[in-house]
Amino acid sequence: MSDLKKYLRPEIVDMAPYKPGEQPGAAKVIKLNTNENPYPPSPKVREAIVHATDRLERYPDPLATSFRIVAADLFGVSPDHVLCGNGSDDILTILTRAFVGPAERLRLPYPSYILYRTLAQIQGARFEEIRFGADFQLSPEFFVRSDKLRLVFLPNPNSPSGTMIDHDTILQLASSLDCPIVVDEAYVDFAPNHAVGLIAKDPRIMVTRTLSKSYGLAGLRFGYLVAHPEIIGFLRKVKDSYNTDAISIAGATTALSDQSWLKENVSKILATRGRMVPRLKQLGFDVTESHTNFVWATRSDRPVKPIYEALKAQGILVRYMDYTQSTAGSWGDGLRISVGTDGEIDAMLMVLEGVLG
Amino acid sequence: MSDLKKYLRPEIVDMAPYKPGEQPGAAKVIKLNTNENPYPPSPKVREAIVHATDRLERYPDPLATSFRIVAADLFGVSPDHVLCGNGSDDILTILTRAFVGPAERLRLPYPSYILYRTLAQIQGARFEEIRFGADFQLSPEFFVRSDKLRLVFLPNPNSPSGTMIDHDTILQLASSLDCPIVVDEAYVDFAPNHAVGLIAKDPRIMVTRTLSKSYGLAGLRFGYLVAHPEIIGFLRKVKDSYNTDAISIAGATTALSDQSWLKENVSKILATRGRMVPRLKQLGFDVTESHTNFVWATRSDRPVKPIYEALKAQGILVRYMDYTQSTAGSWGDGLRISVGTDGEIDAMLMVLEGVLG
Repeated sequence: MSDLKKYLRPEIVDMAPYKPGEQPGAAKVIKLNTNENPYPPSPKVREAIVHATDRLERYPDPLATSFRIVAADLFGVSPDHVLCGNGSDDILTILTRAFVGPAERLRLPYPSYILYRTLAQIQGARFEEIRFGADFQLSPEFFVRSDKLRLVFLPNPNSPSGTMIDHDTILQLASSLDCPIVVDEAYVDFAPNHAVGLIAKDPRIMVTRTLSKSYGLAGLRFGYLVAHPEIIGFLRKVKDSYNTDAISIAGATTALSDQSWLKENVSKILATRGRMVPRLKQLGFDVTESHTNFVWATRSDRPVKPIYEALKAQGILVRYMDYTQSTAGSWGDGLRISVGTDGEIDAMLMVLEGVLG
Repeated sequence: MSDLKKYLRPEIVDMAPYKPGEQPGAAKVIKLNTNENPYPPSPKVREAIVHATDRLERYPDPLATSFRIVAADLFGVSPDHVLCGNGSDDILTILTRAFVGPAERLRLPYPSYILYRTLAQIQGARFEEIRFGADFQLSPEFFVRSDKLRLVFLPNPNSPSGTMIDHDTILQLASSLDCPIVVDEAYVDFAPNHAVGLIAKDPRIMVTRTLSKSYGLAGLRFGYLVAHPEIIGFLRKVKDSYNTDAISIAGATTALSDQSWLKENVSKILATRGRMVPRLKQLGFDVTESHTNFVWATRSDRPVKPIYEALKAQGILVRYMDYTQSTAGSWGDGLRISVGTDGEIDAMLMVLEGVLG
């Protein structure tokens, strides 16, 4: 039956699948590989979810208006600036489909979120991976206009590095290029500032968010975009009508409303990160300064893949990232380690000491 | 700021948005316009959802394996035959993106589910709307090979008509055409038979399902595809990694496991439909024989749009469907009325009598 392949679009047959981080089952693993929050969400979320089970036989609000009202209030914009999605991956998919036609181009820094590349491939579009310069700052090449460039993805803070691009640079990028710029702020709640205010300065700047990391809701799938209402209007045509469900709308609305929970959670994670980084350095890692709930640890004295494997064998799952093969050239490899609870990080460091002998 | 438009793909700017049926808020409306189940889902679903709130900070299973195991068991296939989605609209989107490239074609009968057309437009593809023949059966034109035809959508039972195409005809269609055929079985639990068995006879036949209708879970967003594992493998590359959330996976798995709930629910709805159809006919409607949880009611003696409006003014929401403007020519218009509870249908009929007065 292998001739079924001929019915698929060739782009789909040829592309490598995007592989999310491993999700082991119920096994007793310390899971520091996908930047989940180690703490459960605000207890109010659970109440909201239970309440939302009352009317599951009815379709949800296609525009998730309750959420948009809370988000608009938080950012001082109108609800028409907000588009909700089934995780921010859904938002990134909608953006790619809306802005980038086949054989057109999207730009992304390297190394960053591998999904951007996958989204271009699914769309039959091209991607321009442009290497970061020193300290994970944008290289001059990133500012150069190119033929058929239709969209830029700029993760800020970036993964795997945890680093940030400052807002003046983002505005400068927007003026240099003739296309919209998506600032992917998946991790921004752990960072000192966010870019939503830039939308008013340049309406081609758009900001994506997720509740998967800082709100402890990876399992719920809820993300959103803040952008100029005219753009939101077009994107509504591209999204599935009911792309967010009644439960996730209720849970996400409640989570976003509980900013005191967020503040407390973030401060716990930053405190753990503050303890974790110097100890990794003591163990011989180079650790990039992080503005996120993970750290990027590399070393030049020995390969890190065996370290990842040895940790895994002892029930500690971190993310081994191999950036040696790319159109943008090699960037080397490293370990991206999520900030867990103090207990999880202590356990990881103890095992790591043993591994490094 | 109206020059933002220039950044969008022209296909997106030009296309008309797909409009789902109205979703009024908490107002006291008898809602018979979007074919929701009038009854709440199996009570076990609620329990499963509450249980699933325990681990929301973790990503869900990307492949929704618990659900695939139950579905595979139900159909006597392997879990590798099943792909899960965020509603069957997500599945239809994935199929379009995987099979139909820009300027290629997809085929759909007319009148049927308007979303198929929208999906082609978003993709920059073409659609061939081919009018149904008499009694909503496929016309000979539907079997004719055409240049660049890559995918066929065949809703079965169809909406708005509630009618079915028999399985021999579907197999004949598959042999006539050189492309995959999606049998969209959103409503099939209300019908006498389903097409999953056809996949083994022709692996180009694929079947989509939703839990929105027969399982009373429109608010949860869960649908799935049953197809040859080789096709499923390719489609996994196109779906968002975490396209179904932890709550919907748990709820959907439990709902599908509770087949006795399904049986009882379907028989209640069919009983109500059995009472509803003759009374609509007495009131002067032509009612197509329905194999679904809705009926298609038309009349030649007077326009139906004012009837829809008069019902709406009195708090009864049915769906007015206007099929007078299409590349396939006019089909006329009608009212698609969901089968509610006995009480809701009695109320609708009473108001309708007054309206027709």
